[in-house]
Amino acid sequence: QKVESVSSNWYERLGFGGYTQLRYNRLFETTDQLECDQCDKSLGADGGFFLRRSRVKFAGNVAPKMYAYLQFDMATSGGNSLSHLLSLKDAYFDVALDDEREYRFRIGQSKVPYSFENMQSSSNRLALDRNDALNSAAKDERDLGVFFYYTPVEIRKRLAFLTKSGLKGSGDYGMFGFGLYNGQGAGRVEKNDNIHAVIRMTYPFEFTNGQLVETSIQAYKGKYTIPLSEGNLSNQDLFDDERIGGTLVVYPQPFGFQTEYNIGKGPEFNPGLMTTELKKLKGGYAQVMYRIEKGDHTFIPFIKYQYYDGGKKFEIDARSYLVKDTEIGVEWQYNKYLELVALYMISDRTFEDGIRPIHHVQGNTLRLQLQLNY
Amino acid sequence: QKVESVSSNWYERLGFGGYTQLRYNRLFETTDQLECDQCDKSLGADGGFFLRRSRVKFAGNVAPKMYAYLQFDMATSGGNSLSHLLSLKDAYFDVALDDEREYRFRIGQSKVPYSFENMQSSSNRLALDRNDALNSAAKDERDLGVFFYYTPVEIRKRLAFLTKSGLKGSGDYGMFGFGLYNGQGAGRVEKNDNIHAVIRMTYPFEFTNGQLVETSIQAYKGKYTIPLSEGNLSNQDLFDDERIGGTLVVYPQPFGFQTEYNIGKGPEFNPGLMTTELKKLKGGYAQVMYRIEKGDHTFIPFIKYQYYDGGKKFEIDARSYLVKDTEIGVEWQYNKYLELVALYMISDRTFEDGIRPIHHVQGNTLRLQLQLNY
Amino acid sequence: QKVESVSSNWYERLGFGGYTQLRYNRLFETTDQLECDQCDKSLGADGGFFLRRSRVKFAGNVAPKMYAYLQFDMATSGGNSLSHLLSLKDAYFDVALDDEREYRFRIGQSKVPYSFENMQSSSNRLALDRNDALNSAAKDERDLGVFFYYTPVEIRKRLAFLTKSGLKGSGDYGMFGFGLYNGQGAGRVEKNDNIHAVIRMTYPFEFTNGQLVETSIQAYKGKYTIPLSEGNLSNQDLFDDERIGGTLVVYPQPFGFQTEYNIGKGPEFNPGLMTTELKKLKGGYAQVMYRIEKGDHTFIPFIKYQYYDGGKKFEIDARSYLVKDTEIGVEWQYNKYLELVALYMISDRTFEDGIRPIHHVQGNTLRLQLQLNY
Repeated sequence: QKVESVSSNWYERLGFGGYTQLRYNRLFETTDQLECDQCDKSLGADGGFFLRRSRVKFAGNVAPKMYAYLQFDMATSGGNSLSHLLSLKDAYFDVALDDEREYRFRIGQSKVPYSFENMQSSSNRLALDRNDALNSAAKDERDLGVFFYYTPVEIRKRLAFLTKSGLKGSGDYGMFGFGLYNGQGAGRVEKNDNIHAVIRMTYPFEFTNGQLVETSIQAYKGKYTIPLSEGNLSNQDLFDDERIGGTLVVYPQPFGFQTEYNIGKGPEFNPGLMTTELKKLKGGYAQVMYRIEKGDHTFIPFIKYQYYDGGKKFEIDARSYLVKDTEIGVEWQYNKYLELVALYMISDRTFEDGIRPIHHVQGNTLRLQLQLNY
Repeated sequence: QKVESVSSNWYERLGFGGYTQLRYNRLFETTDQLECDQCDKSLGADGGFFLRRSRVKFAGNVAPKMYAYLQFDMATSGGNSLSHLLSLKDAYFDVALDDEREYRFRIGQSKVPYSFENMQSSSNRLALDRNDALNSAAKDERDLGVFFYYTPVEIRKRLAFLTKSGLKGSGDYGMFGFGLYNGQGAGRVEKNDNIHAVIRMTYPFEFTNGQLVETSIQAYKGKYTIPLSEGNLSNQDLFDDERIGGTLVVYPQPFGFQTEYNIGKGPEFNPGLMTTELKKLKGGYAQVMYRIEKGDHTFIPFIKYQYYDGGKKFEIDARSYLVKDTEIGVEWQYNKYLELVALYMISDRTFEDGIRPIHHVQGNTLRLQLQLNY
Repeated sequence: QKVESVSSNWYERLGFGGYTQLRYNRLFETTDQLECDQCDKSLGADGGFFLRRSRVKFAGNVAPKMYAYLQFDMATSGGNSLSHLLSLKDAYFDVALDDEREYRFRIGQSKVPYSFENMQSSSNRLALDRNDALNSAAKDERDLGVFFYYTPVEIRKRLAFLTKSGLKGSGDYGMFGFGLYNGQGAGRVEKNDNIHAVIRMTYPFEFTNGQLVETSIQAYKGKYTIPLSEGNLSNQDLFDDERIGGTLVVYPQPFGFQTEYNIGKGPEFNPGLMTTELKKLKGGYAQVMYRIEKGDHTFIPFIKYQYYDGGKKFEIDARSYLVKDTEIGVEWQYNKYLELVALYMISDRTFEDGIRPIHHVQGNTLRLQLQLNY
């Protein structure tokens, strides 16, 4: 794990890669009222082909104890009708304290170590979107700040294996992690004088039969400034924002099971009083999957159920949510460059804010995604 | 044409390139009222130096049957006064069905195969801007969707020669092409539940004297959602959008001739009734050019005349146009990195919308462009 | 200095590099009213961690007499609350007239050769922000146009040494430079029919004891279109904009001294009459520094005082400024990849516009910056 030397050629020092996800969500839909701002803006009425993510990254060891990671998104909405601007997704730098790089600081914009599904790359996730319950913890999963990670070499090797082997691990965000960050979300201007703090511990167990199981606990605390609609009667926009969550992942060898749950408190719109209040929140998901290899191809059928009862701090008025979604799908890895996911979504969502204080949508649709890796 | 193997080094797998066009349009102008939103925003009053295009691309075969192409524009307007944002121009992936790559799907954001001049790279075009008549078919020539192309190996070689030899071909968009796409234009949010369909056939003839002649036919059909101004009395914004066009290119060996024409129907503002209506449209262009090589330098003088009578769906109210422009110019290729184009434009344009229902501009100007390839 | 040949591999032709600056300005602040739009938007209330700059560049000789330079910023604000969009910082091309490249045109968007501190890369500057007096000459130090530079080979070598040796030179913007450019600033739409002209001469003296001293004179002239607030009673927005300035840099071997001063005239808000007028402006800065090398580490303590009395043309109403700031700090170069700057700022600023016609802020704060080079 020690970096002995670094090439003097930039193109050997840095690797290049990325992926693009093209989606179409409108086949066999039972209503065109499906909507999920956080998940996929092309659900429901007026949706068509959609680049959900289009990413490129440059990353590598620039010095024995320093690793650089730059990732751009190329499908960023710029308001009005522009949808394919480039923006910075990650710009972080790992500065290791020891030669083995067991102790390191991660500086810049990077993922907030809260929730396995948030850490796991979208290019590896089976379901098209992250669950609402834990993904509402950090806008775009990322923030700007300084994080500290500790991972013993042996654990680092295990975490690396979980990613490289196709078992869809989360990567190495520390066996132990701690961080201070703005808290308003990736690429967002800080709006208050408070910083957020996060802490996480994870452990990937390896059983004698080779089965890998990872379990984690994580928590964060801070204050969030929410956007208010005109109709909102609230006289404050700064709210406590704190959560604690647990994770269990039984990696698919070939049968897998994955669940996460979190509780906490944060801002949530109250449609009865037309105001935003500090409220309790809770929710999580459970997923079963089965990994089948057929020649060069890999198929992973899966079922995921998710539940969330709480507000979403980064949406208008900290929109109130009650989510009960089921997804039944399959990922087909044609080769390492091309993947197809098809899933049938059975959705039941109540989401209410000052503009639409009563709003409940139930419906199903077939969702398709072609992913290209380069 | 078969890709035998692909390097394991990303920098050998992917090529890098691009070009930048710096313009100045204000010398010898007879009026400062010249304007063309679609062509060049620096024409007329308050125009100065202008980066019309600044592009970089990464492209290459990432696997024997998979080709990736990513192109960014670095001179994208972000509304208000920002003019040099980065945006995605192309993010497409060719997935071939056979080893010879004769049959392939193109997935992502790419050029809509409609019109030779639209397909041809702006870095190769003689005139500074594309013609209004066929370029108004697809905003920024591109859209998001899935395209299918068939090109026999022999035709592919001929199309490749037309580009590499400096004859300014369009590249390979299939001898036969078919596609489904959103229809609102590149990097634009889809605004309706309809998709567009396009079909095209082209054939590059090679005569026994070596003279190359290409002829094509193309058509598309869909529905377009237009932006309406406040004064527009129309009670609909969704209109039929369909066209058929023909192409003839006699490549400059050394004398060349190029013409395209299309007819169709689409939304067009009616200044008499202050409303947008579904109307017929027609128009095209003809160009003659002569290729002169002098040592390392190449000079190509040209004359182009264009005519368009119809609306432009992606402009406010589907602005009504009557265009009769003549351009007389010369391209000087100093070397393969540096090109200068100077042209004298004799313009006669009527363009009317709900904000300026009566608007006719006649005038001339000298236009200069320095192009740098890298 | 002659480029003998250029590699046929793009990755050998072009180099890649960049740097990221993460800041935190809120420790030991005596007031949260500190603000400086031009310097650092995270000063004062609601500031947190902040990516002040995050850059990548591709640059190299693409042909014996042609050099390409592309630089992107990845922390560009896109209005509202988006803060990490990608935008073009530099896209310029040096076309040399002679093999030794002593005479060259620089075409595209590049730095306006006015002021040493403007030319010097932010990655090399000791103080966190440029001085107001000379940096207010050109928005983001850059503009779009065509520049001509002449540098004899011997002087070019000396200027290159000043950068490579860690003495924090400005790079080669010509011993003599002249340019024509839009004048509204980098990545800004031109807003009037005038172009700006700039001229500069610099000379780096080398004394027999090895001490290097650089002195420069520079001037520019043009017209600027300012943004007006609603309360501004001015009936014009186009103003003369001209300055002349001098530079003296005694490079830190180990003791260094640096000063610049400029006078001129330009638009400035008058809070008494609530209008913007053409007024005189003056100001500059002086800095002393001392370079200490300890093993692999370099420490450079410095003190900088700056003064500016004038308007800032690119801010609302050409906001009126009276600035008297002192900075006492130290730069610690941990290695060539990692730098930390800590400085204590003692600020006294009056800045007034149509929205806040009476506004004076005095206060101090500790500012921290971690810079990562890659």
